Amino acid sequence: MSQARLIIDESETNADLLWATGGFFVPDPCIFLQKGKRKYLVLSDLEYSRAQKEAAVNEVWSYSELQPLLKKRRTGRGSMADYVDAACRKLKVTRLEVPANFSLHYAEALKKMRYKISVGPEPFYPERAIKRADEVKAIQKAIRATERAISEGMETLRKSQIKAGRIYFRGKALTSERLRQVINVNLMEQGYVAKHTIVAGGKQASDPHCEGSGPLRAHQAIVMDVFPRSETTGYHADITRTVCKGKAPERLKEMYQAVHAAHQTAMKKIKHNVDAAKVHGAAVEVLEQRGWKTERKNGLLQGFIHSTGHGLGLDIHEYPRVSALKNKLVTGNVVTVEPGLYYPKLGGIRIEDDVLVTKTGYTCLSRLHRRFEIL
Amino acid sequence: MSQARLIIDESETNADLLWATGGFFVPDPCIFLQKGKRKYLVLSDLEYSRAQKEAAVNEVWSYSELQPLLKKRRTGRGSMADYVDAACRKLKVTRLEVPANFSLHYAEALKKMRYKISVGPEPFYPERAIKRADEVKAIQKAIRATERAISEGMETLRKSQIKAGRIYFRGKALTSERLRQVINVNLMEQGYVAKHTIVAGGKQASDPHCEGSGPLRAHQAIVMDVFPRSETTGYHADITRTVCKGKAPERLKEMYQAVHAAHQTAMKKIKHNVDAAKVHGAAVEVLEQRGWKTERKNGLLQGFIHSTGHGLGLDIHEYPRVSALKNKLVTGNVVTVEPGLYYPKLGGIRIEDDVLVTKTGYTCLSRLHRRFEIL
Repeated sequence: MSQARLIIDESETNADLLWATGGFFVPDPCIFLQKGKRKYLVLSDLEYSRAQKEAAVNEVWSYSELQPLLKKRRTGRGSMADYVDAACRKLKVTRLEVPANFSLHYAEALKKMRYKISVGPEPFYPERAIKRADEVKAIQKAIRATERAISEGMETLRKSQIKAGRIYFRGKALTSERLRQVINVNLMEQGYVAKHTIVAGGKQASDPHCEGSGPLRAHQAIVMDVFPRSETTGYHADITRTVCKGKAPERLKEMYQAVHAAHQTAMKKIKHNVDAAKVHGAAVEVLEQRGWKTERKNGLLQGFIHSTGHGLGLDIHEYPRVSALKNKLVTGNVVTVEPGLYYPKLGGIRIEDDVLVTKTGYTCLSRLHRRFEIL
Repeated sequence: MSQARLIIDESETNADLLWATGGFFVPDPCIFLQKGKRKYLVLSDLEYSRAQKEAAVNEVWSYSELQPLLKKRRTGRGSMADYVDAACRKLKVTRLEVPANFSLHYAEALKKMRYKISVGPEPFYPERAIKRADEVKAIQKAIRATERAISEGMETLRKSQIKAGRIYFRGKALTSERLRQVINVNLMEQGYVAKHTIVAGGKQASDPHCEGSGPLRAHQAIVMDVFPRSETTGYHADITRTVCKGKAPERLKEMYQAVHAAHQTAMKKIKHNVDAAKVHGAAVEVLEQRGWKTERKNGLLQGFIHSTGHGLGLDIHEYPRVSALKNKLVTGNVVTVEPGLYYPKLGGIRIEDDVLVTKTGYTCLSRLHRRFEIL
């Protein structure tokens, strides 16, 4: 009797399952088993024929097909664990390796059936961090779409007027909500789903996760952080540009230049086998050298208060992280480089690009210009 | 020492967490504890001030705030389980009730720290199934937006021409992809995120979860199943209309009328305290009486091959189900009613509305007409 890897989930949010099935989207939880290199999917009759056509697995079984194998201990349709049990008996499997986020409920049910359950590595498929050429291509396509959408946002700002410090587009106050909609609709037109797009200006932008609301103001930094997912491939892009409608105050310009320098310096550190902590450290150092302190004031952290980047793929945040923690980057990783500065009194500035790690250095996959002022 | 309820997750996909925090969206996993009626959130400094403003909890703690309380057993920043432990010691809690989908990895880590872990009910907050007035309102708003989007899809079909059996809009072949984009973009303009919208015609529609691709044809059934989520509230709508561009063949019309009759009959069964299986059974009976069989042919199920409906709220599929399983509906439930028929040779037909269960019956929250032919 031998071991298999098991996932019970839907692939809309479980990137390991989506990856392991070659990009098969299934909206309701199903059973995925892998024994050696052979992959099996167990799902409802409703999904059966679509799975046979679309899922990159060796065999697809429907619940009704396995029903005769269900042990008598339960009546009726059988629980998910019963179907796992039926499939495992078919495959002569008694030990199961599951992901860290595997459901405690199913784990307990399977343990009662005498299965040995162990938690596998995190990420469950470490190979996901090393992108194949077709994955890089899918990310690149998402990046192009995102650049077009942010460009339309910038164009909207360019066409806008300033009156008494506020920004007006086609006669109406330009709000965070309205500019976000311009970007999101542009992306949807291209087949990309954007959620929680950040368009935050002034003080709001000093909170890196504030989505932004209300009228946008001139002569302030406006952060646009856009991270859509392809409806068809499931891959993400993640790009941030910070702009200022109208002339920027000197201090804000210096802050922008500091973030830009940190961004460039961090990016240049990237290559195969480098410790990601060194990339992060390089960004930290540039900002500190230029006098931009990271500290707690009135209980609130300000300065460079997040890490430099994260892996990007089927998950928007995935392995490897680019932070203060030791972590080797290797050829094929796709990571964001996104230093930022946040001060309640000045606002927030973040510049984010997506980078492919190569043997000798990196390829910056995003190309959108980084001009700060939009006059 | 006493008990608390624990969730470790992000609220973008964990509807229980989103509900328990009063609609606080957090993109990265955080710790939620509830002891009696008091609620606590533990999250990164990055989310701290936003959580204090937006989350409906009694206290918000940041990781850095709890750091001094971390036990010495681990060095560095501490794992998620370490922070749970610190918070639990602060709250004098030793027993934890967690959701069925709680991470096995965290459960094992907490058990090692001598916590007693038990799996709570499913759904973790059963109250979620009984919608408050503001929740019904949020669903209703999502429904209105969805109706506008489907109407634009119908209008696109109305304005289209038929040439040699194919449908043309503004001179170009109207594909599933193009019509889906019309619907999805309309929704994004209204602030609703639509994913995996189904626009499937002809044989494709005989697979209920096929999203549809390629040119659409006249005189065939086209299923439009649209289930967006509000970017701001998190609530869903879920509406399906099936239409036919040009005259429909007699047999297809009969099939449509059968589904429509099943839909009406099922809906009329809905009221407080009724068994959902009776609602489902009523739909099954109407279809059978009209001679539309559900059976396996060449290994493929055809006929009415799914259940009649499901609860609708922060999750697109949630409790209560409306299926062959016994399940009481009660006042305040919002469920879909969506019988359908699927035959590879004829195509697929599904009609879906969203219904609020009331003391004396039901209120159909969706209002969009159900005309089949678009001439």
